[in-house]
Amino acid sequence: DFLHALQHDIKPAFGSSKEELDIFLAQGILSWGEPVNRVLTDGDLVISQIKTSDQASLITMLLEGAPGTGKTALASKIAKSSDIPFMKLCTPENMIGYTETAKCQVIKKIFDDAYKSPMSCIIIDDIERLLDYVPVGPRFSNLVLQALLVLLKKNPPPGHKLLIIGTTSRKDVLQDFEMFPLFKTVAHVSAISTAQQLIMVLDSTGGFSDAELQSIAKKLTGARLFIGIKTLLSVIDLAKQMQAGERADKFVNLIEDLGAIDYTGNVCL
Amino acid sequence: DFLHALQHDIKPAFGSSKEELDIFLAQGILSWGEPVNRVLTDGDLVISQIKTSDQASLITMLLEGAPGTGKTALASKIAKSSDIPFMKLCTPENMIGYTETAKCQVIKKIFDDAYKSPMSCIIIDDIERLLDYVPVGPRFSNLVLQALLVLLKKNPPPGHKLLIIGTTSRKDVLQDFEMFPLFKTVAHVSAISTAQQLIMVLDSTGGFSDAELQSIAKKLTGARLFIGIKTLLSVIDLAKQMQAGERADKFVNLIEDLGAIDYTGNVCL
Amino acid sequence: DFLHALQHDIKPAFGSSKEELDIFLAQGILSWGEPVNRVLTDGDLVISQIKTSDQASLITMLLEGAPGTGKTALASKIAKSSDIPFMKLCTPENMIGYTETAKCQVIKKIFDDAYKSPMSCIIIDDIERLLDYVPVGPRFSNLVLQALLVLLKKNPPPGHKLLIIGTTSRKDVLQDFEMFPLFKTVAHVSAISTAQQLIMVLDSTGGFSDAELQSIAKKLTGARLFIGIKTLLSVIDLAKQMQAGERADKFVNLIEDLGAIDYTGNVCL
Amino acid sequence: DFLHALQHDIKPAFGSSKEELDIFLAQGILSWGEPVNRVLTDGDLVISQIKTSDQASLITMLLEGAPGTGKTALASKIAKSSDIPFMKLCTPENMIGYTETAKCQVIKKIFDDAYKSPMSCIIIDDIERLLDYVPVGPRFSNLVLQALLVLLKKNPPPGHKLLIIGTTSRKDVLQDFEMFPLFKTVAHVSAISTAQQLIMVLDSTGGFSDAELQSIAKKLTGARLFIGIKTLLSVIDLAKQMQAGERADKFVNLIEDLGAIDYTGNVCL
Amino acid sequence: DFLHALQHDIKPAFGSSKEELDIFLAQGILSWGEPVNRVLTDGDLVISQIKTSDQASLITMLLEGAPGTGKTALASKIAKSSDIPFMKLCTPENMIGYTETAKCQVIKKIFDDAYKSPMSCIIIDDIERLLDYVPVGPRFSNLVLQALLVLLKKNPPPGHKLLIIGTTSRKDVLQDFEMFPLFKTVAHVSAISTAQQLIMVLDSTGGFSDAELQSIAKKLTGARLFIGIKTLLSVIDLAKQMQAGERADKFVNLIEDLGAIDYTGNVCL
Amino acid sequence: DFLHALQHDIKPAFGSSKEELDIFLAQGILSWGEPVNRVLTDGDLVISQIKTSDQASLITMLLEGAPGTGKTALASKIAKSSDIPFMKLCTPENMIGYTETAKCQVIKKIFDDAYKSPMSCIIIDDIERLLDYVPVGPRFSNLVLQALLVLLKKNPPPGHKLLIIGTTSRKDVLQDFEMFPLFKTVAHVSAISTAQQLIMVLDSTGGFSDAELQSIAKKLTGARLFIGIKTLLSVIDLAKQMQAGERADKFVNLIEDLGAIDYTGNVCL
Ligand SMILES: Nc1ncnc2c1ncn2[C@@H]1O[C@H](COP(=O)(O)OP(=O)(O)OP(=O)(O)O)[C@@H](O)[C@H]1O
Ligand SMILES: Nc1ncnc2c1ncn2[C@@H]1O[C@H](COP(=O)(O)OP(=O)(O)OP(=O)(O)O)[C@@H](O)[C@H]1O
Ligand SMILES: Nc1ncnc2c1ncn2[C@@H]1O[C@H](COP(=O)(O)OP(=O)(O)OP(=O)(O)O)[C@@H](O)[C@H]1O
Ligand SMILES: Nc1ncnc2c1ncn2[C@@H]1O[C@H](COP(=O)(O)OP(=O)(O)OP(=O)(O)O)[C@@H](O)[C@H]1O
Ligand SMILES: Nc1ncnc2c1ncn2[C@@H]1O[C@H](COP(=O)(O)OP(=O)(O)OP(=O)(O)O)[C@@H](O)[C@H]1O
Ligand SMILES: Nc1ncnc2c1ncn2[C@@H]1O[C@H](COP(=O)(O)OP(=O)(O)OP(=O)(O)O)[C@@H](O)[C@H]1O
Ligand SMILES: [Mg+2]
Ligand SMILES: [Mg+2]
Ligand SMILES: [Mg+2]
Ligand SMILES: [Mg+2]
Ligand SMILES: [Mg+2]
Ligand SMILES: [Mg+2]
Repeated sequence: DFLHALQHDIKPAFGSSKEELDIFLAQGILSWGEPVNRVLTDGDLVISQIKTSDQASLITMLLEGAPGTGKTALASKIAKSSDIPFMKLCTPENMIGYTETAKCQVIKKIFDDAYKSPMSCIIIDDIERLLDYVPVGPRFSNLVLQALLVLLKKNPPPGHKLLIIGTTSRKDVLQDFEMFPLFKTVAHVSAISTAQQLIMVLDSTGGFSDAELQSIAKKLTGARLFIGIKTLLSVIDLAKQMQAGERADKFVNLIEDLGAIDYTGNVCL
Repeated sequence: DFLHALQHDIKPAFGSSKEELDIFLAQGILSWGEPVNRVLTDGDLVISQIKTSDQASLITMLLEGAPGTGKTALASKIAKSSDIPFMKLCTPENMIGYTETAKCQVIKKIFDDAYKSPMSCIIIDDIERLLDYVPVGPRFSNLVLQALLVLLKKNPPPGHKLLIIGTTSRKDVLQDFEMFPLFKTVAHVSAISTAQQLIMVLDSTGGFSDAELQSIAKKLTGARLFIGIKTLLSVIDLAKQMQAGERADKFVNLIEDLGAIDYTGNVCL
Repeated sequence: DFLHALQHDIKPAFGSSKEELDIFLAQGILSWGEPVNRVLTDGDLVISQIKTSDQASLITMLLEGAPGTGKTALASKIAKSSDIPFMKLCTPENMIGYTETAKCQVIKKIFDDAYKSPMSCIIIDDIERLLDYVPVGPRFSNLVLQALLVLLKKNPPPGHKLLIIGTTSRKDVLQDFEMFPLFKTVAHVSAISTAQQLIMVLDSTGGFSDAELQSIAKKLTGARLFIGIKTLLSVIDLAKQMQAGERADKFVNLIEDLGAIDYTGNVCL
Repeated sequence: DFLHALQHDIKPAFGSSKEELDIFLAQGILSWGEPVNRVLTDGDLVISQIKTSDQASLITMLLEGAPGTGKTALASKIAKSSDIPFMKLCTPENMIGYTETAKCQVIKKIFDDAYKSPMSCIIIDDIERLLDYVPVGPRFSNLVLQALLVLLKKNPPPGHKLLIIGTTSRKDVLQDFEMFPLFKTVAHVSAISTAQQLIMVLDSTGGFSDAELQSIAKKLTGARLFIGIKTLLSVIDLAKQMQAGERADKFVNLIEDLGAIDYTGNVCL
Repeated sequence: DFLHALQHDIKPAFGSSKEELDIFLAQGILSWGEPVNRVLTDGDLVISQIKTSDQASLITMLLEGAPGTGKTALASKIAKSSDIPFMKLCTPENMIGYTETAKCQVIKKIFDDAYKSPMSCIIIDDIERLLDYVPVGPRFSNLVLQALLVLLKKNPPPGHKLLIIGTTSRKDVLQDFEMFPLFKTVAHVSAISTAQQLIMVLDSTGGFSDAELQSIAKKLTGARLFIGIKTLLSVIDLAKQMQAGERADKFVNLIEDLGAIDYTGNVCL
Repeated sequence: DFLHALQHDIKPAFGSSKEELDIFLAQGILSWGEPVNRVLTDGDLVISQIKTSDQASLITMLLEGAPGTGKTALASKIAKSSDIPFMKLCTPENMIGYTETAKCQVIKKIFDDAYKSPMSCIIIDDIERLLDYVPVGPRFSNLVLQALLVLLKKNPPPGHKLLIIGTTSRKDVLQDFEMFPLFKTVAHVSAISTAQQLIMVLDSTGGFSDAELQSIAKKLTGARLFIGIKTLLSVIDLAKQMQAGERADKFVNLIEDLGAIDYTGNVCL
């Protein structure tokens, strides 16, 4: 029955989350520019803090950025590089169709498990989804919200340390919910914004000839872009289905259709 | 009892959906014009992408257009022509009167089944209906919405591929729900808009004499139409009940009553 | 207990509805004017369509008009004259105090039964009541609404035909609910609007002397009326309790009190 | 337990309501003026209609007026004088703390019982209270409202007759709820509005000397009053506790405090 | 378990409430001025009415005033001085954390018990709290509200009498809820408003020397105060903790901090 | 199962809370300035009142201040220094994911236990969180709110005394909820506002050389700060991870990033 299925479904969430992180990292982290490094450096600082400090037993970090900019992958990368033995992923993917009570149970279980380990790391992925947030209304699960608001402040037992890494594409919503200030470190995950950065990605993924790359670079020179790495990788994949001759043009068309190019080159926001 | 009935009702939904697709295609796809081909071509591209790409394991496509323009039939056509072995239909027709929890269970089951197959295709038909959406309020099932928002982003397990084809006549609502950007390919399903296209349909369905066709064509020359193929086929059917002498006139009257003709011929919208 | 009672209450709804139709037709259909005929003619067309067409397997018709104008009686009349063997009445009278879930079950059962018959007819009476609609709020049962929105579009199985006749006095509400366009034929049920039509009714019901009829006719000459047949029959009945001498005057007073007479005779609306 | 208690509590409601009516009539009906007679005459007409008419099987009447004007007593009086054998009282007093589902059950039971009798009368007292209506919000029980909206239109079985008498002090609310037009006869229950009417009541109840009556009459000459009979009887009762010497003055003071006197004597409303 | 606990918790509420009244009266009633007497006189009148009148079987009285002005104590005083044998206290203190259904049960039980006694008195303390009222929203329990609206109008059985004394600090809310007019007698419980009244209280409670009293009186001469007796007693208690030398000054400071002094001495409100 | 877990989870909350207080005090109370002393003095007064007064049996105190200003630590400090034997902590940390009913049960149990002891102290920490408050909506648990509104007024049984210490960072919300006036003593917990106070904290925590302290002091001279002690300690901890050379500068940068420095030195609020 359903309850049985629920138990069954929950189980994997209580095992090690290491493999799950690997899935999010399957396509790797491309070093397309300075913004990527900045996030990783912030991650390093936070990891060093939790490892060496005597005082701080609870460290919280938020990765925020537009949809598809690579937040989940970067959070996984940071968590993985920390080598903290107890590692848990708290993601809406494992709670589809759960009632808010069931969600709270799962979340609480993850934290209770973490409190038992001397040093733990929890990734809370896609917070607005975990909250069942939708701007129409707006509606959201206050039960889950209140649970997170408490958990993000609650110290682990004496002698234990906990690193919490959250991700969101709705920083504004977290501010409305008064959750934002509970993250003591906040790193902005940027979209790709220059032709140079884009070419660096195309170069890494392969599949475009040098001539094509040059043609694309020329078209985009001076233009201002705004496209997340996840979206970009998906567009590249689609473009690869096209014939060699028209691939470069089609590729530029596709990202134009997404409204991701501003040819004026003047950023006025 | 009801629970028993529920189990029973759900069952067919978990079998193969191939026959269900055939029902939606019973009246065939008439090639009444360029817009029809464009949608089918987009479908081909998406199918080729899921079949050949190494990277993309989750492909999402949306068919959006006014009510009765043929979205469900076209989605069925594309899915069928893909020859993907695991094919599932997620439609509100199979969930009448279900609670939102029951709906989520069914939807989750469909996806869980799909994840087990190396290559699968899921049609999510009539998304606004699946969400129990009504503009008064507005009201909708947030539980189902959140489930879809997660499922439309969640990658199938490594080595598995999934194609999701959604249909909706409320593109604006999907935008408000922040679901729209999760569809990486969007195809617009058009209404019939010229007399020529309409005559092409009348010609295919038969039942009108050449003289009648010419009379209709003359009346509509230069007029701007806006009528979905489904509505048009139903009007044609009604007109066939009428006497031969008055059929052509009555037919034009009927589509006039629907507000589907703009005689100015000037499209200002 | 209650559940037992529920089962018991539901039962009659699953038997034949023929006798129920007769109750609605107990007072007969008076041919008080052209508007009555128009509705009946539209009904004939729809019946001929479902009987002869090869294409259309689902035919939907809506009778809409002000409260008390005779919608339920006319729908019953059309359904009865169709001679379709499987005939079902889906009316709020059989679902008093039901939860929305129970309502959905009953409605679904009616449709599932109909799908089993090669040709069926379902009357959905008083749709706004079935939806538990009230303008304060507004409030309504979204569960029932969504069920109807799907059922009004869902084709019966191949080889089966279904005629759905709905009635409502809130056309505007059905438009807000996006249910209106799902009815492919819409017939307006009119109120009595001229003295002549009213006299025709008085004449048929009897109980007024010729002198009284002439006196009434004189008073109302040139006036614009707006009174439904059901209300009119009830007022006639009340007037009959009065003494012969004052009956004609009192009758005119009663319909004046209802605000149903506009003596200016100029219709500006 | 509670369910047991519920059963127990409901029981009396299903017995005869004759004695209950007597309770409401314990203080009798004082003939303080024309408005009282008008209501009773309307009641007589309705009773004669249900007794003699062949056509009308459902007669509905509403008594509406400000709080404390005697609606419940007058409804009881009319019902009692009809001598209809089956008589039921549907009053919120018997449903305190019931859920809306329980209320609907009770109401439905009352009507189902009535349908079994060839001629029945149901008093629906204090409709706004039965609906759990409160203007803050506003909030109300839509389940009960919808049940009443259907029951006030539903004909009893062929050969049966039913008289429904409702009372309310919120005519406006019933209009918002589209329930008002379902009452085919509406009688307004007036407050006492002249000094003469008031003196008539004081005279009937006794306890004031002639001198006191004259003193009161003099003070109030020409003033416009607005005080329900129930409130008035309660004030008289309180005044009787006072000493003979000051009784007349205190009595006038008490109704002044209620804001029930307008000394200008000019009615501008 | 909880239900067991509930039963257990409820029990005391069904015993005699005499001792509970004594708790509310532990600090006694100080005769600090005319307003106190007025309330007690109104109480006497109401008690005499219920004891002697033949007519009135239901007497309702409301004590309303700002928070901490002594409403609960005065209601207890009046009830106690009536010597009515059956005495019940309906207070939110006995229903903490109850669902609205449980509250209704308790309230109904209190009234049902009272109806069995020939003469009873029920104190409904802190009505806005009983209703779970909060101005944000506003939110409140409509189930409890509707129960009270009916119970405040419902006559006890023939031959029985019932006195209901309510207290509230939100007269405005009771008006919005249309509950206010159901109280036939309303007494306003005043705050202390002059220096003289305050000194009278200080004098009664003791602990201040004559010099201190004179010093306080001098400071406050001509000032307008607004402080409830409950608040005042608590401030006096706090001041007593201070050293003799600075007590008088600190005391005045404390009530200044409460915003309870208006030195202009001109009341413009 | 869950219920079992619930029982289990609740248990510790019913034991002694002394150890829990120690956790909140692990980092001690630094005497960084006059505002700290003021709160502690207010605490002393309240403790002396509950210990010596004959009258007051219920004493309520609120610590309010911006997030991270040390409210919980100061409340723990005051409670601990009182040496009251029965000490309970009512904190959202022990009720994560509880339904509002479960929360009320826990809270009620804490108070019922306290009433049994002759002298008790209850800390209600983070009241807005206990109420599940979120400004979006706003939403909150009215059940918990109403329980607290009653408990904050309810006297313990005769001969028993109770001290309640609440903390909140949303004084405004408590005012909207009409809970604020129920706290008879209110102490404001201040943020650090001058460079001098900040240096005093840095000095106490150690880890900065005298040169660094001087450099920081110089930079901040005359500037207006606004930073809670909790936030400050966390920033200090982070700064300690940095290299000695750049530590002072980075530290000032970090608090600048928090928007906690106003260099104009003019407080205009
Ligand atoms: N420099 C990079 N940073 C982040 N992701 C990268 C980078 N280079 C490549 N990737 C790949 O890009 C994808 C980023 O997707 P990811 O799901 O992390 O984005 P996201 O911001 O979490 O998206 P969403 O907003 O939908 O949650 C991953 O497949 C990741 O392997
Ligand atoms: N070119 C065409 N494209 C789509 N449908 C076609 C075409 N030619 C004929 N049809 C027929 O038209 C009908 C289209 O109905 P369909 O249910 O697909 O429309 P829809 O847009 O999904 O309607 P709705 O908005 O009500 O869901 C089908 O019966 C289909 O067989
Ligand atoms: N020409 C007519 N058309 C419809 N009804 C007629 C006609 N002549 C007589 N009647 C009688 O008038 C009554 C119409 O009542 P009916 O319940 O059908 O009205 P309705 O519009 O459905 O009312 P409501 O809006 O309350 O649902 C029936 O008793 C019917 O027998
Ligand atoms: N002429 C009269 N009409 C009505 N009631 C009268 C009359 N004379 C005396 N009474 C007495 O006045 C009282 C009227 O109270 P009743 O409960 O009927 O008023 P109501 O309008 O129903 O009040 P509410 O608005 O509170 O429901 C009854 O006790 C009735 O016996
Ligand atoms: N003249 C007086 N009137 C009322 N109470 C008095 C008087 N003199 C002394 N007291 C004492 O003052 C206190 C009044 O508190 P009480 O709880 O009755 O106030 P309240 O108005 O009900 O407060 P709340 O608004 O919080 O419910 C009691 O302890 C009572 O014994
Ligand atoms: N003077 C002080 N006052 C308060 N806390 C201090 C002081 N000096 C050091 N501390 C430490 O500062 C921290 C204050 O954190 P605490 O949780 O009490 O803040 P808070 O105001 O309750 O925060 P929040 O608003 O998040 O609930 C504690 O670790 C405490 O030991
Ligand atoms: Mg992500
Ligand atoms: Mg479709
Ligand atoms: Mg009808
Ligand atoms: Mg009444
Ligand atoms: Mg009180
Ligand atoms: Mg705190």
